[in-house]
Amino acid sequence: MLGRKGVRHLISISDLTNKEFEVLVNKAQTFKQIYKNGSPQEFASNHQKLLGKTVALVFSKRSTRTRISSEGAAAFYGATPMFLGKDDIQLGVNESFYDTTKVLSSMVSTVFARVNSHSEIQQLAEHSSVPILNSLCDTYHPLQAIADLLTIKEAFQDTKGLKLAWIGDANNVINDLAIASLKLGINVSVATPIGIEMDKKILQTAEEVSKETGASFEHTHDPKATATNANILVTDTFVSMGEESETAKKLKQFEGFQISEEHTKLANKDWKFMHCLPRHKEEVTDEVFYNKNSLVFEEAENRLYAAIAALEVFVVNKGDFSK
Amino acid sequence: MLGRKGVRHLISISDLTNKEFEVLVNKAQTFKQIYKNGSPQEFASNHQKLLGKTVALVFSKRSTRTRISSEGAAAFYGATPMFLGKDDIQLGVNESFYDTTKVLSSMVSTVFARVNSHSEIQQLAEHSSVPILNSLCDTYHPLQAIADLLTIKEAFQDTKGLKLAWIGDANNVINDLAIASLKLGINVSVATPIGIEMDKKILQTAEEVSKETGASFEHTHDPKATATNANILVTDTFVSMGEESETAKKLKQFEGFQISEEHTKLANKDWKFMHCLPRHKEEVTDEVFYNKNSLVFEEAENRLYAAIAALEVFVVNKGDFSK
Amino acid sequence: MLGRKGVRHLISISDLTNKEFEVLVNKAQTFKQIYKNGSPQEFASNHQKLLGKTVALVFSKRSTRTRISSEGAAAFYGATPMFLGKDDIQLGVNESFYDTTKVLSSMVSTVFARVNSHSEIQQLAEHSSVPILNSLCDTYHPLQAIADLLTIKEAFQDTKGLKLAWIGDANNVINDLAIASLKLGINVSVATPIGIEMDKKILQTAEEVSKETGASFEHTHDPKATATNANILVTDTFVSMGEESETAKKLKQFEGFQISEEHTKLANKDWKFMHCLPRHKEEVTDEVFYNKNSLVFEEAENRLYAAIAALEVFVVNKGDFSK
Repeated sequence: MLGRKGVRHLISISDLTNKEFEVLVNKAQTFKQIYKNGSPQEFASNHQKLLGKTVALVFSKRSTRTRISSEGAAAFYGATPMFLGKDDIQLGVNESFYDTTKVLSSMVSTVFARVNSHSEIQQLAEHSSVPILNSLCDTYHPLQAIADLLTIKEAFQDTKGLKLAWIGDANNVINDLAIASLKLGINVSVATPIGIEMDKKILQTAEEVSKETGASFEHTHDPKATATNANILVTDTFVSMGEESETAKKLKQFEGFQISEEHTKLANKDWKFMHCLPRHKEEVTDEVFYNKNSLVFEEAENRLYAAIAALEVFVVNKGDFSK
Repeated sequence: MLGRKGVRHLISISDLTNKEFEVLVNKAQTFKQIYKNGSPQEFASNHQKLLGKTVALVFSKRSTRTRISSEGAAAFYGATPMFLGKDDIQLGVNESFYDTTKVLSSMVSTVFARVNSHSEIQQLAEHSSVPILNSLCDTYHPLQAIADLLTIKEAFQDTKGLKLAWIGDANNVINDLAIASLKLGINVSVATPIGIEMDKKILQTAEEVSKETGASFEHTHDPKATATNANILVTDTFVSMGEESETAKKLKQFEGFQISEEHTKLANKDWKFMHCLPRHKEEVTDEVFYNKNSLVFEEAENRLYAAIAALEVFVVNKGDFSK
Repeated sequence: MLGRKGVRHLISISDLTNKEFEVLVNKAQTFKQIYKNGSPQEFASNHQKLLGKTVALVFSKRSTRTRISSEGAAAFYGATPMFLGKDDIQLGVNESFYDTTKVLSSMVSTVFARVNSHSEIQQLAEHSSVPILNSLCDTYHPLQAIADLLTIKEAFQDTKGLKLAWIGDANNVINDLAIASLKLGINVSVATPIGIEMDKKILQTAEEVSKETGASFEHTHDPKATATNANILVTDTFVSMGEESETAKKLKQFEGFQISEEHTKLANKDWKFMHCLPRHKEEVTDEVFYNKNSLVFEEAENRLYAAIAALEVFVVNKGDFSK
């Protein structure tokens, strides 16, 4: 998304061209090598890129992985992360959303924003003079999608023609993951319980990207059909933070959606399992979650390199993907 | 204020000579240029100044602008800011104020303190072995005054002979802003509601500074008289944080004090408006606050450079204003 | 303690050889000189050691000294400290302890953990891929012991043959301080109220270390006997954080255990007093606590150099004490 004065924001994977998204995943892979095995010179050189600057984390909700990965990415570039939780800053409370955004963005180099509603991200992006990096809203989760596609690329090398099977809720994670997968040529099958449909706008974007890359997209209510021949099985929590009161109702609705050996037997013999964490037992059995084919911890670690890649492109290179 | 072992603290603008205050404003202006347009070498060179050190932020109350600007200033000099809110440290609770101050100041390079009462700042300054930078107490707000005078200097270049009109409460902000303005030759007129008088000590200091610089000071209860021919109209919230229960009473008391077109018409045709934020509608209309003549967002951003200047003089240069 | 993949953790002083503990104290002393009087080159050189990395502080309970010293140590090495309080991360809540530890340790260079029960530290150490530095649990407090022995070494130079008298509770602080003192040849006498006994495992380790170093260990219920001829008098709070409801009962139990002139008169004429803070009046009189012979503030400051030494050995040098 292009905001004020041509500032480029990271709002959703849908906003990126296929090539731009690929650049982000490739950069995440490159920086992973540097972060894990780089020379002191490589660290020192990257540390100069945002030296002396600050990076704000505006978090309306707790999010451990997002926080650690964002602060880690800021630190890598020599910037000081500044965590502003709901007790530190409240968007739209005590002063206007516009005023807070104007002031905040005048003093920091970028904002990782983990808000509630997508409209909050849009307002931030509209008024901010620095890049807004969507770190989770109710509709999108682009940094997770970058980490996920890096994880898939590491496991399979060639992503073209793989089948990704999402068995779970129609939420922010699959919204961006579906588009991200299609952009890299991965066929996507999404199974949600009857009564839960994916966002129409996502379905439309999925159709468009499918046409461009040739990857197929389907939306079913049949976990077994979705799991069949899948290379990657993915799910997420059924009960989101703040919705705990609805647990019983949700569990009933998601009967048959717990990923288990039943699904891995239907999948490709080299199946992999992914989950963006935190994980609860209702969505996946221990046998699958802690299986040697499970990539969940690599996936979590890759959040760090996704955040590093996003800072590189949107902040260090000011939205220039060609650098 | 000179504390233990000759440590120089920033407690109020009144403690500074006219020349010292001017040095701080000029440094803020210089560092603004470096922060916004400096070369990597300039960043690297400043980043060495407090490299590897920590800067504590002891905040009894939330204060977004103060926090962001202080952490940004610490980061600029290579120091790590350490935010200690009321849940992290409670001065005088669980151990003596003296003990906490002794221990804290033995491990950090300086303390930005945003406390409740002025006596807390005085106690910190008395016992601390490192500079205490008053980041808002119930009586003073010196970092805001540095930012405000930088903002005025940027807008008018020559400050001598300007008229600053404060229409609002007799609070910590105007206490330091009045003295700061007089020190730079700006005539000051303060209008408060009947029944609200300025601190006697401030009035006395104002008189003394007026004699030195030739700038005039008046204290009225007439917003229109105060606004007349003003170059700068300034106000602040009527209802301070923690006083929300008194809102109705305050609003009645401040009838006629909302800055509006009525006042800008009385002012000089090149009037500017300032407000230290957060802003509420009762103290200023949207027409004035979001006017092209409003400097409120420049003023907020300038908090960063004020904090950078204060760190430079009090911490990097150990209170030596001649460097 | 040796964890996963040969990662060396700092769990308790008992886990260290006498020589290893001495290395930590000596490094703390060396780095104190550098921190206080080092050249810009020395700062720059140390700042490269963890440049661009993060250091997590997982704190289930508030702990001002521990937090400031840990963040200060991280900053010294160029790492960014990341404070994760109980509102930020809850071990074992919302996801399994194992999952959180795996993910956290994949993204940071080390974890300062200030938890409740010792079993939590053990679980962290078991699953973490990076060093866990025990920053206080209900059984041990190794970083305090390093700071304490540095303080004693500074005051007496030669530690062999000194007598350390602990008059107070049988808690985490004395558990590690007793073993630490014995390792450096200091005779230890512990006086606790009748009904309060030291941990059997500590008594056994004390006996073993006594045999190695020739320093004596005794456990009494007689504060006066313990104070007699002591070089160092030490105590700690009787009422720990979270136990305030038991204050009256505790005060009765600790009658006669308040360290006062009565004890300093029995001690060696060059007695010193120590306390890890925060201090309450019930455990020591003002006359002793603020006496010129009191080392409490040096001791608190030394926490910073203890944390710097621990980071050097366990993180920078990856557990190699010979560097």
